[in-house]
Amino acid sequence: MKNQVQLITYVDRLGGQRDGADLARLKRLVSEPGAPLAGVFGGVHLLPFFHAIDGADAGFDPIDHTQVDPRLGGWADIKSLTEVVDVMADVIVNHMSSESPQFLDYSEKGEASPYAGLFLTLDAVFPQGASERDLLAVYRPRPGLPLTYATLKNGERRILWTTFTAAQIDIAVHHPQGRAYLSGILRTFADNGIRMVRLDAVGYAIKKAGDSCFMMPETFEFIAEFAQEARALGIEVLVEIHSYYQRQIEIAARVDWVYDFALPPLVLHAFNFRTATALKRWVAIRPKNALTVLDTHDGIGIIDIGADASDRAAHPGLVPPQELDELVERIHAASQGQSRKATGAAASNLDLYQVNCTFFDAMGRDETAYLLARAIQFFLPGVPQVYYVGLLAGHNDMDLLGRSQVGRDINRHYYTEDEIARDCERPVVRRLIELIRLRNQHAAFQGEFTLLDSSDAALHLRWSQGGDWAELQVDFAASTHALTYSTPGGQGAFAFS
Amino acid sequence: MKNQVQLITYVDRLGGQRDGADLARLKRLVSEPGAPLAGVFGGVHLLPFFHAIDGADAGFDPIDHTQVDPRLGGWADIKSLTEVVDVMADVIVNHMSSESPQFLDYSEKGEASPYAGLFLTLDAVFPQGASERDLLAVYRPRPGLPLTYATLKNGERRILWTTFTAAQIDIAVHHPQGRAYLSGILRTFADNGIRMVRLDAVGYAIKKAGDSCFMMPETFEFIAEFAQEARALGIEVLVEIHSYYQRQIEIAARVDWVYDFALPPLVLHAFNFRTATALKRWVAIRPKNALTVLDTHDGIGIIDIGADASDRAAHPGLVPPQELDELVERIHAASQGQSRKATGAAASNLDLYQVNCTFFDAMGRDETAYLLARAIQFFLPGVPQVYYVGLLAGHNDMDLLGRSQVGRDINRHYYTEDEIARDCERPVVRRLIELIRLRNQHAAFQGEFTLLDSSDAALHLRWSQGGDWAELQVDFAASTHALTYSTPGGQGAFAFS
Repeated sequence: MKNQVQLITYVDRLGGQRDGADLARLKRLVSEPGAPLAGVFGGVHLLPFFHAIDGADAGFDPIDHTQVDPRLGGWADIKSLTEVVDVMADVIVNHMSSESPQFLDYSEKGEASPYAGLFLTLDAVFPQGASERDLLAVYRPRPGLPLTYATLKNGERRILWTTFTAAQIDIAVHHPQGRAYLSGILRTFADNGIRMVRLDAVGYAIKKAGDSCFMMPETFEFIAEFAQEARALGIEVLVEIHSYYQRQIEIAARVDWVYDFALPPLVLHAFNFRTATALKRWVAIRPKNALTVLDTHDGIGIIDIGADASDRAAHPGLVPPQELDELVERIHAASQGQSRKATGAAASNLDLYQVNCTFFDAMGRDETAYLLARAIQFFLPGVPQVYYVGLLAGHNDMDLLGRSQVGRDINRHYYTEDEIARDCERPVVRRLIELIRLRNQHAAFQGEFTLLDSSDAALHLRWSQGGDWAELQVDFAASTHALTYSTPGGQGAFAFS
Repeated sequence: MKNQVQLITYVDRLGGQRDGADLARLKRLVSEPGAPLAGVFGGVHLLPFFHAIDGADAGFDPIDHTQVDPRLGGWADIKSLTEVVDVMADVIVNHMSSESPQFLDYSEKGEASPYAGLFLTLDAVFPQGASERDLLAVYRPRPGLPLTYATLKNGERRILWTTFTAAQIDIAVHHPQGRAYLSGILRTFADNGIRMVRLDAVGYAIKKAGDSCFMMPETFEFIAEFAQEARALGIEVLVEIHSYYQRQIEIAARVDWVYDFALPPLVLHAFNFRTATALKRWVAIRPKNALTVLDTHDGIGIIDIGADASDRAAHPGLVPPQELDELVERIHAASQGQSRKATGAAASNLDLYQVNCTFFDAMGRDETAYLLARAIQFFLPGVPQVYYVGLLAGHNDMDLLGRSQVGRDINRHYYTEDEIARDCERPVVRRLIELIRLRNQHAAFQGEFTLLDSSDAALHLRWSQGGDWAELQVDFAASTHALTYSTPGGQGAFAFS
């Protein structure tokens, strides 16, 4: 993976019109000379662009995972985009849509379908029957049981395994049809120039009676097999897992790439509590094979820096629980209460452990602090990703939230091309793009990283390679900061405001 | 039970104001000389009036089953009402509210609570674990599993048995606390003059692993024990069961009173298909210990005349399936499509087997046909009940449906006292009240019932006692009818229009 900043975006929400030309439009936006984002990014993570992008889970429930939604364009447009920028795409490995041809065939033919056995049922997971202990042992990302009572089209009734929603039926990934399905997706991706995949919710892919059905040894085995198959096709694999921080470290040791989901709340914690201790502790131990983020299409992960839910006393988090609670309150306050309306039960939100808010609003629209947060992100080992709303220092979209009643939509604004052009002229966005270019181009970032000693309130990071160097110093208590770097003539400084 | 027509009503929806005086107001309405309904009814079934009447299930989820909702009045008002009319009240035997003091105590103290064991869990029903076969064997009145994943206040997680909603926790009726709870309700009722109880959803009260958990031999035993306890307190017991018609006959043979839920769809069938064959077949075999209804606070039961869901070929219904489907369509057409909006998935309606519509609108507001339908009801053996909306020949309440999005609210209008007074002046309502008085007062109805021979299209019913007689003749094909009866001087006829 190129050591350059990547963009995370929906194809149709960043200047798209859903007219079949959105992929071509996105290519122009990130590559055409004179376009607002030309040459800014080394890679783009395209959020699901499969048929159809507008399912209940915003594309994560495709009907056909190997077909590009025609409203965005076709595979030729994807391939064309890969010529100017590295492209990452999602593989939804855990489940299939209840509208997929495979499930419809099973629903009509039952056991006579070639896909019988592909869809997990209660009996398939618990052949001896499930007790409360069994079902309560299953790690749940959402409230409720992972079970759906379904009447198939052939009249048969089954209890299906559904980790997320009743419209997303979990599949037996080791079933011949499951393997063929996943391999087919990888091959289609490889054929069309995609060089990175993100395994969505892969932690839930393997089920085992009596166990948590989440990130078990068998799950790691599955990820390793899948990654091997991907690598043989020239594809790198990113694993998406929200988890206790120690566990994240263990997971990172066993896979190609992970997200650093602890970073966004730790950065907010540092600014809000005027201390760098928790952040620095994490910097010292965090995995280096990480994609760093401050924002994604999901909310700000709280669980990632909290205690281990299975034993809070024995396994405390990176931040004490009372500070974690207060941090959530501070985000709500910084966003004028908007994030509260999009989070938890208030928005019937299913992601109980995430706060939904744009990162810029979570920082109270403080432009200097926001740019400092990005600088910290860019200075940590790994490959930085910037979410399209964060790139444009976007505000919470309360209209979209109100219309959809989906909490995460607060941070999923649909930008017109005019809005993008206008936002790119805002000083905060111009400075951010400069910062991205510095991160991409300065030779120091290809060298050695050092976490330098500093007071509890301060963070001091350095990169160096030969005579090239770059340093970031932030004192959260004194509110002082400096980003300096070597230049051919001597040294330069980045102005945050 | 007095052989006179009874009223079914909510206390607060028939002229109520929820100001603490609704029970007193209702008493005046049905008894005060000059009041619109004075002396019309021999009994009143008061729909749930317990604390609180405005839960998610419109009173069927009381927090305290032994307390009158103070917005309606108090026990003294109930007792006072029983002095002018027989009163029937509901006993909700299957479950308790998740807000009840008992459940809250259990939620806080867990196994240390005296109510531990009162609330059914998955393990309590399936100590060996539940397979798909086990869970699919459970007869379900609603879609989905009867299970709720709950986190108690003490942090413990349990999988609770919930036949209806997550807020209605099923109880172990044989647990000492369950027995004490149900006995306490009966004693409170008896102390306050209530002489009839309706066992709500009692068919689900007993659970047994591997069985349907619906109307099993063990359920009949429980009903028999409960009825014995009630009778010892001078209380008669009505059992509410929607079921296949043959099963209804079996159930009726084993309990005091049942509803004749087959009657409303059969009457609609007769008028719509211009034939009396299905209706007469039912009249010949139907149980006589029935409360006859055309409408209740629930929808029009379709399941009650359909085939047995467990084996449709071997156990056909009273009406062929294609006619049943067409009947539903005819109701929707007669109500100008309003009932469609309140029924099935369209209204997120949980009662898939009931059509929600006022009976008057289901008959296309044909006043003559409506009065004939009531006459047929009143001429069948049993005790007739008239729902308050039906009494006032009410229309669908699309406003209330729109506000609440609860399908059944289409037939649960809130009447002001002015509306009642005005509706009682409508010719159709005046004729209906005359018909009720005839049914209550004519001596023939205390005598012998005969189903007389007639053509397939016609119905001919007769009551006689000594020299008194009353006859109803309806020809659904020719659209002719006559209701004649003996008078001291000779004979009279009831004019339907």
